[in-house]
Amino acid sequence: MSNVKIPVGISARHVHVTREHLDILYGEGYQLTVKKDLSQPGQFAAEETVDIVTEKGSFKGVRILGPERKKTQIEIALTDALKLKISPPVRDSGDISNSPGITLVGPKGSVTVEEGVIAAGRHIHMTPADAGKLGLKDKDIVKVAVPGERALIFDQVLIRVNENFYLEMHVDTDEGNAAKIKTGDLVEIIK
Amino acid sequence: MSNVKIPVGISARHVHVTREHLDILYGEGYQLTVKKDLSQPGQFAAEETVDIVTEKGSFKGVRILGPERKKTQIEIALTDALKLKISPPVRDSGDISNSPGITLVGPKGSVTVEEGVIAAGRHIHMTPADAGKLGLKDKDIVKVAVPGERALIFDQVLIRVNENFYLEMHVDTDEGNAAKIKTGDLVEIIK
Repeated sequence: MSNVKIPVGISARHVHVTREHLDILYGEGYQLTVKKDLSQPGQFAAEETVDIVTEKGSFKGVRILGPERKKTQIEIALTDALKLKISPPVRDSGDISNSPGITLVGPKGSVTVEEGVIAAGRHIHMTPADAGKLGLKDKDIVKVAVPGERALIFDQVLIRVNENFYLEMHVDTDEGNAAKIKTGDLVEIIK
Repeated sequence: MSNVKIPVGISARHVHVTREHLDILYGEGYQLTVKKDLSQPGQFAAEETVDIVTEKGSFKGVRILGPERKKTQIEIALTDALKLKISPPVRDSGDISNSPGITLVGPKGSVTVEEGVIAAGRHIHMTPADAGKLGLKDKDIVKVAVPGERALIFDQVLIRVNENFYLEMHVDTDEGNAAKIKTGDLVEIIK
């Protein structure tokens, strides 16, 4: 295994929305505004936010990530889930079957989805070239060592390979805080 | 290294107070009420809570753990710290020098401490007998393997040995959620 350093990206709670739901939340034909490009090509943090609401709790101003997707998906940390009193499964992005629902509230309307709330599984984006260098392939599971005062080794880290990916390990805020790492810090895949 | 299973205890944010500060927060001579005994002998979660407040944020109803201590100490997760916009160091309990201050608000008064807010370092309480079985001694640093869908290995886990301790690994809510473990789950020290 090569000792390639992998930059970390910490994902705060966020929402991906369908075109149809964006029409309801922000108005027919509304176009998301790019606030900041994300490291994965084409992905961006939008200026727009929504409130996410359950019977027991809520978070205001949760960032929408663009562009629109085929399914509305809400990614939260398990610390957030405790406040909302729901139990999202740990899943890879896109896999939302039988996950809890939630209500999204925008300036023009609100949408209640029957499912869609997940805690994202840890994963590393990489190109086929990176994968080749590391002796890895798509869907491999690896361990990742984080140095420092809260040093730990993440197990069960999914490798995702795509020509368009930018080399980066994604963890959520609980994982980032547990390891005391921030976006841009460097970690290493270990055997 | 023996394969002794160690129960986990997840610490939510909480406060330890001095007798002097309890006098201000709850009134002269006020006695804390035991809500629930904790697993470490003599320690308890009190019925009493305080609000913790910084210039930028607050948490209401933060549990006081008794009995009173020689220094007031506020233990929060780094996720909490982000909301309060302070940067507590990761420290062992009792080591609060040069940590951020905060304001505690009780029903009878409020106290602003100049220092005292920490994120607790991971640690395992054990008796000398447990330590002997595991080939460990006080202040050793070990790794701990957590199984499951968010499997990981905590590094930099401090061993604390005392005749009165009950075998338990303490982590905070960020660490518990990052590993998807709850109080009572079993983990194992590894080489």
